[in-house]
Amino acid sequence: MRPQDIIRKKRDREQLLPAEINFFIDGVTNGQIADYQISALLMAIYLNGMNEAEQQCLTEAMLQSGSIMDFSSIARPKADKHSTGGVGDKTSLVIAPLAAACGVCVPMISGRGLGHTGGTLDKLESIPGYRVDLSAREFQNVLEQVGYAMAGQTGELAPADKKMYALRDATATVEAIPLIVASIISKKGAAGLEAMVIDVKVGSGAFMREEERARALAQALVKTGNSCGIRTRAFLTDMNQPLGCAVGNSIEVKECIEILRGEIAPGARPVLDLSMELSAHMLVLSHVEDLLAEARQRLQRALDSGDALERFRQNIVAQGGDPSVCDDPSGVLPLVRESFKVESRRSGYITAVETTEIGNAIAALGGGRVRIDDTIDATVGFLSEIKIGDKVTAGQTLGVVFSRQESRAREAVSRIQAAYQVGEEPKGNLPTLIKEIVNE
Amino acid sequence: MRPQDIIRKKRDREQLLPAEINFFIDGVTNGQIADYQISALLMAIYLNGMNEAEQQCLTEAMLQSGSIMDFSSIARPKADKHSTGGVGDKTSLVIAPLAAACGVCVPMISGRGLGHTGGTLDKLESIPGYRVDLSAREFQNVLEQVGYAMAGQTGELAPADKKMYALRDATATVEAIPLIVASIISKKGAAGLEAMVIDVKVGSGAFMREEERARALAQALVKTGNSCGIRTRAFLTDMNQPLGCAVGNSIEVKECIEILRGEIAPGARPVLDLSMELSAHMLVLSHVEDLLAEARQRLQRALDSGDALERFRQNIVAQGGDPSVCDDPSGVLPLVRESFKVESRRSGYITAVETTEIGNAIAALGGGRVRIDDTIDATVGFLSEIKIGDKVTAGQTLGVVFSRQESRAREAVSRIQAAYQVGEEPKGNLPTLIKEIVNE
Repeated sequence: MRPQDIIRKKRDREQLLPAEINFFIDGVTNGQIADYQISALLMAIYLNGMNEAEQQCLTEAMLQSGSIMDFSSIARPKADKHSTGGVGDKTSLVIAPLAAACGVCVPMISGRGLGHTGGTLDKLESIPGYRVDLSAREFQNVLEQVGYAMAGQTGELAPADKKMYALRDATATVEAIPLIVASIISKKGAAGLEAMVIDVKVGSGAFMREEERARALAQALVKTGNSCGIRTRAFLTDMNQPLGCAVGNSIEVKECIEILRGEIAPGARPVLDLSMELSAHMLVLSHVEDLLAEARQRLQRALDSGDALERFRQNIVAQGGDPSVCDDPSGVLPLVRESFKVESRRSGYITAVETTEIGNAIAALGGGRVRIDDTIDATVGFLSEIKIGDKVTAGQTLGVVFSRQESRAREAVSRIQAAYQVGEEPKGNLPTLIKEIVNE
Repeated sequence: MRPQDIIRKKRDREQLLPAEINFFIDGVTNGQIADYQISALLMAIYLNGMNEAEQQCLTEAMLQSGSIMDFSSIARPKADKHSTGGVGDKTSLVIAPLAAACGVCVPMISGRGLGHTGGTLDKLESIPGYRVDLSAREFQNVLEQVGYAMAGQTGELAPADKKMYALRDATATVEAIPLIVASIISKKGAAGLEAMVIDVKVGSGAFMREEERARALAQALVKTGNSCGIRTRAFLTDMNQPLGCAVGNSIEVKECIEILRGEIAPGARPVLDLSMELSAHMLVLSHVEDLLAEARQRLQRALDSGDALERFRQNIVAQGGDPSVCDDPSGVLPLVRESFKVESRRSGYITAVETTEIGNAIAALGGGRVRIDDTIDATVGFLSEIKIGDKVTAGQTLGVVFSRQESRAREAVSRIQAAYQVGEEPKGNLPTLIKEIVNE
């Protein structure tokens, strides 16, 4: 078997056989297939797609390409949430402690921010001392002690995915549904999950702007996840404006801690609502509760009682961070006072937000990565005060940019200002936070 | 500008701008763009194509990526012939001396065999002492002295093509028309040509099996060649059976020398006919003759007078080979006596030949390269005695395989035997050698 013959088949829209897919993924894993051959196949898959059988086989092969975590010593059901990425999307920090407090074991393998979206690991690292580079042993210990652990993908976990993901970013093949599905499910499967909810973002701040494509992705994720033995459900949720108010690393952590403390700003409400719903489905899929209504009540009790915040605190301690951040987030997190108002250019109603542009503006300011080796400035961010449908007057503050670098901050301000569209009339219906739940 | 944004545009079927194509080819040339990004773009071009403006720009950029030969010190018109490759296709060895004898300067940059097709350089190297690795200075000297010179593409000539060609072979992106056109025309342009005829092979032994695709390639070659300032004409010629009788390195050289000596076996007649027609068009495109009829007469005189053979001899001397091969090819060339008959399995008429299979059988025997670093055995080959339309009886010899390795030779015999289809009735019309001449 030769790599180029497999590339040729996909190029010519022929179905790849399991033996061919396995040969290719083995070659990716052991380095026998050259990067330029991998990327040619990625582009052929991007343009010609994959059918269900190929999708299933690709995912399984990537899942099996490295070690698979074994948490059989932990009796609780293993479940996780995954998001396709958005701006201000911070629900992982709320869901993990909430679900853990309700009896789910959450081995969360998260990513770094790249492009306009932030990354859970970057956000967590804004807590002084917090370590995400846990060894497999440490990860398991934290999981046993706290009920959830947060770490990055190691080279041992789905190494074929790690390799292919890096190539996809450099070859404009990120957005292909078969590749997204295989990447997500292979990592989750290797993390030993039994159940999973996937938050597929759709809108101006998501990788998928069109609902139809997002739905196709959600369906493929659910189908492939279930085929790999993970009980999977997917949400289609709105990403036409930042989720909550905070966009940036420290200020997103602060928003989450406030939510866990019960100090919920009105603009942060969607973060809690979405976290609760995703968690409720996690509980049901994990068989911790049979009914969603009961799951919701149990989650509400975990929040109100402070159990979720207590899990969050325990996790910080277990992962080396400063737990006093839970009591005084503003005093402990690296935040800056220097702020720059984003003012509305005209009076009217917010009709749309170019959310990706907000993400890019904050990334350019140092809050994210333009290149994979950029370092993150945890202090910078944008705190929005306004949502789609709100009435504004010219000069009214839409939000505030935080940064110590005035000239770059002013650039971010003008990019974000331009990202808000103001019309004379409110435009149709407001976006629905949860658009659809895909079960199969 | 980022490579992945250019890849993305082609992926999304948007037209690439000249600045983008130039940026990419510059990056290919200076190594700033990674191989995996080049191959992703190659696959996107393969699947999404290029329009005329992109094709023109890509070709120019590749042409300009290295040095351009300057033969302005030579007064004669510079012209060449190029073939897209076939089995037994040896016309270069006849055309170059013929055209040179008629006043054309032929700076022929040729290739090595790969896959089922042979390469002119490999064939020439079966002449003891013959060197094809000429320096630019040596190449020019031979050209001045003899009127034609034969060498391989150096790293200085269209280096972007050299890089991309190697990647195309490994990534199943060889057969894309825009890439074939850019590769051929950029090399020919860098060789300083004024005129060129291109022999586009079509049929069971060609890269293009379908006439329609071959015609599209021919038209794109003519259009792009002319746009790059090379007066270009393309032939569509038959490759549904080996051209002439000989397939292999030494035996193909022998067939060519016999043709130049006027000792033409009936089965070798098509080699001469095609060489004469291609040369006649070269002479007209070079303005050496105004009319094809006069060009043909002039070529016939060069052949009959021995002038062409004399040029061939001078070229061998100039490139370090043993010129006595012209007088006694069988005594000088590395040939073997060991031969194995390929017999017809049944009685009837030859209706079709799977010509690629013959090429592959001889390549597997050592006559060609399965991999790019294989060494060539000049002695092996296949000498056919039968053509499509011929009547055969069961057990009749279709041709002879030469090799010293009996078991491998027997394998070649059975592959070649299976490549000949014998039907009860002759099948329709015989293939026409020259199907079409494409002028624009």
